[in-house]
Amino acid sequence: MPAVHPLDTPLFLTRGARSVIGPAKEAAAHAGTMSTLQITDGRVLLPDMSVETGDVLVNQDSGDIVAVGDVETGDETLNADGCLIMPGLVNAHTHAAMSLLRGYADDKPLDAWLREDIWPAEASLTPEDVRAGTELALLEFIESGVTSFADMYFHEPEVVDAVADAGLRARLGHGVVTVGKDEADAVADNEESLAFAREYDGAADGRVKTAYMPHSLTTVDEALLREFTAEAREAGVPLHFHANETRDEVDPIVEERGMRPLAYADDLGMLTDEDFVAHGVHSDASEIELLAERGTAVVHCPASNMKLASGAAPVQAYREAGATVALGTDGAASNNDLDVFDEMRDAAMLGKLAAEDASAVPAEAAVDMATRGGADALGFDAGRIEPGANADLAVVDFSATHLTPVHDYVSHLAYAARGSDVRHTVCDGRVLMRDREVETLDADAVRARAADAAANLD
Amino acid sequence: MPAVHPLDTPLFLTRGARSVIGPAKEAAAHAGTMSTLQITDGRVLLPDMSVETGDVLVNQDSGDIVAVGDVETGDETLNADGCLIMPGLVNAHTHAAMSLLRGYADDKPLDAWLREDIWPAEASLTPEDVRAGTELALLEFIESGVTSFADMYFHEPEVVDAVADAGLRARLGHGVVTVGKDEADAVADNEESLAFAREYDGAADGRVKTAYMPHSLTTVDEALLREFTAEAREAGVPLHFHANETRDEVDPIVEERGMRPLAYADDLGMLTDEDFVAHGVHSDASEIELLAERGTAVVHCPASNMKLASGAAPVQAYREAGATVALGTDGAASNNDLDVFDEMRDAAMLGKLAAEDASAVPAEAAVDMATRGGADALGFDAGRIEPGANADLAVVDFSATHLTPVHDYVSHLAYAARGSDVRHTVCDGRVLMRDREVETLDADAVRARAADAAANLD
Repeated sequence: MPAVHPLDTPLFLTRGARSVIGPAKEAAAHAGTMSTLQITDGRVLLPDMSVETGDVLVNQDSGDIVAVGDVETGDETLNADGCLIMPGLVNAHTHAAMSLLRGYADDKPLDAWLREDIWPAEASLTPEDVRAGTELALLEFIESGVTSFADMYFHEPEVVDAVADAGLRARLGHGVVTVGKDEADAVADNEESLAFAREYDGAADGRVKTAYMPHSLTTVDEALLREFTAEAREAGVPLHFHANETRDEVDPIVEERGMRPLAYADDLGMLTDEDFVAHGVHSDASEIELLAERGTAVVHCPASNMKLASGAAPVQAYREAGATVALGTDGAASNNDLDVFDEMRDAAMLGKLAAEDASAVPAEAAVDMATRGGADALGFDAGRIEPGANADLAVVDFSATHLTPVHDYVSHLAYAARGSDVRHTVCDGRVLMRDREVETLDADAVRARAADAAANLD
Repeated sequence: MPAVHPLDTPLFLTRGARSVIGPAKEAAAHAGTMSTLQITDGRVLLPDMSVETGDVLVNQDSGDIVAVGDVETGDETLNADGCLIMPGLVNAHTHAAMSLLRGYADDKPLDAWLREDIWPAEASLTPEDVRAGTELALLEFIESGVTSFADMYFHEPEVVDAVADAGLRARLGHGVVTVGKDEADAVADNEESLAFAREYDGAADGRVKTAYMPHSLTTVDEALLREFTAEAREAGVPLHFHANETRDEVDPIVEERGMRPLAYADDLGMLTDEDFVAHGVHSDASEIELLAERGTAVVHCPASNMKLASGAAPVQAYREAGATVALGTDGAASNNDLDVFDEMRDAAMLGKLAAEDASAVPAEAAVDMATRGGADALGFDAGRIEPGANADLAVVDFSATHLTPVHDYVSHLAYAARGSDVRHTVCDGRVLMRDREVETLDADAVRARAADAAANLD
């Protein structure tokens, strides 16, 4: 039975009981040579999912965590009284600017929804619209403790600029679709994706990384996938693409090629340990094993998969096979918010239903997928609170009624907390939100620009 | 395509454009003879799920809605600028005091979870504990726009007192389990349930109604079910019980009796149009039809059903058959919050997955189940905003980032809003929460008492 830690018990408040978890004293001795941020008076979620009383000391110059535990005073402080300091959440698959289409069309089969509603609306989006929609998404990320994300969309240089301003970390790419295009346009679309990846990798002081992003195995021609995947490998650019989201994506490949979609991707050279695929709903046992062997991460998007009736991904099987599993919201049009706390809850709950086992995908697994799993999928040295890791952090307030009492912090993160319980958000050592006030974006202006852009869609 | 109504467009703010929706002028003329509350400057969700600009006028003496639309000034006002005024949400199946067990034990199969964790903890609960846990739940209800609920638990007179103080509306009952009891105890437990129902019906100025609540068809003996159901009928007391939650509840009845569980319940006289059953996950087509014919409501608890891996209820089939469907959180130990916005989202999403159809259980259906469906199940004249109905209302603030832009209010209620977006809560014409401040309970004291009670469980 987990111990009860109500916020007013002596255990929580007694400073003398704190354990030294990291090399705090040496770090503190060096603190005078760097600009530091001390997150104080909270509890800390450690990589083994245990929770300890302690502070976190951050080097704001390097953006790294310096020490965890009983640290000395920092130059700047962030109060975490009554809070849990956890790794920032990772939204490992989204189309950020689709926040403009939140609630634009719902409750329709995938094909009709795309053809009748989403694609026509997207065709009219200008670079300014994509910027407005992306900023709305980034504001929602910061407000809900998300510190890094992967984006697949278009007008992607606008996304780079938005990420640079907002202070987040991201893996970005231009999504390629060649179906219905003539050869010149198809080639040009692939070239744009690869050129973007080459040009912008390392932007925003290194917080932006990139990928070549063919949309999926059924929407990009085989010859082009083979050619540009090879070019991406030469350039050291990883891949991100949709795979096995719906049965309609699986069946044609199996029929035409006599192999499973991920075996086909493997044949094309698309599965390495730097690549990550979205969805993986209809993967069979051989594909689960293949992803685990190749070290290719899979991004589970439970809300989108439910809302579009795509199916329930075999999350427990992926994890048992040793595959890296991350969580993603997908675009806001199929969710309809970008709250990764919802994805944790959905992943844990849907995972149990899919496995017909209430012990499948426990709370710890959900939190692991949303933090370490996401950082691993995106290739960031984050997702865990320990010295040397990037200081990407969310500070969650546990004083709300719906988080009372506190028998188990990790259970509450997975099953009861929501984005609005996040009090502070820190990325790369910089405070992006303090006491629910976002410091890097003008929230009212962002919402107004997005509402204007959305109003012009109809 | 739904029209865009961003909050800063003239459409939203122009008062002259308001339509008169109810018999507003006569009502206003009579307003001098009663104490009135005017909810101003918002939009109103009407029973047909359309949204119109307008005010709501409430008679605080009778607790009823007097007028909707272009109303005259009330004695007291509640500002709804930027908000949607909707019927208060109904949590039609819960065990309120189990909020003390939120996160106490998770991720275990139902049987082990009950036997090893939940039942031992519940065995030690005192009346004071039940009061503390119930008040915590009621605080969470008010904070998230829930205005009425059904509770099945024990020490139920404590729940009556808590409801009276909090100002909510409820259908309450003492849950009966006879398995493992000797005959005298089994009879006494049934007698307690029926005596409670007789004594407390109409308490709290009529806001409390009651029911005879045998736990389920497999945990109460047939002879006692038959005897006490007949007694309940004579006393005019309705029934609430669990049915078809898990396969383990269905199979023994089918094997022993050669009939489906709800056919057995019907044979016992347990299905009338005043009764309501919880879960209904494993109902077959004949049982769906039977519930619809008898007018017995079913309370869908999607989060609990997922978390305990019980299954996915055939919600779309229930609705197509014409059955009344409500939503419930079940107890906080299997959810783990009491936010009916989550249940709407879960119902819409799981409903699509279960039906393998993205057009199943649309947003309007989710909102309907959480409002009109819930009120109908519990037998309250509420769940809709129109003159004459009980003034049970939630005022939802649409200015948050995760609710921007506003293409469709109903979509946002089902897919993007959360309990913390509720700005004001009104029940029976009385303001229970104003600008996120609960007026009928001391929030800090309620949370502290619950944390103390929970700390004593371990």
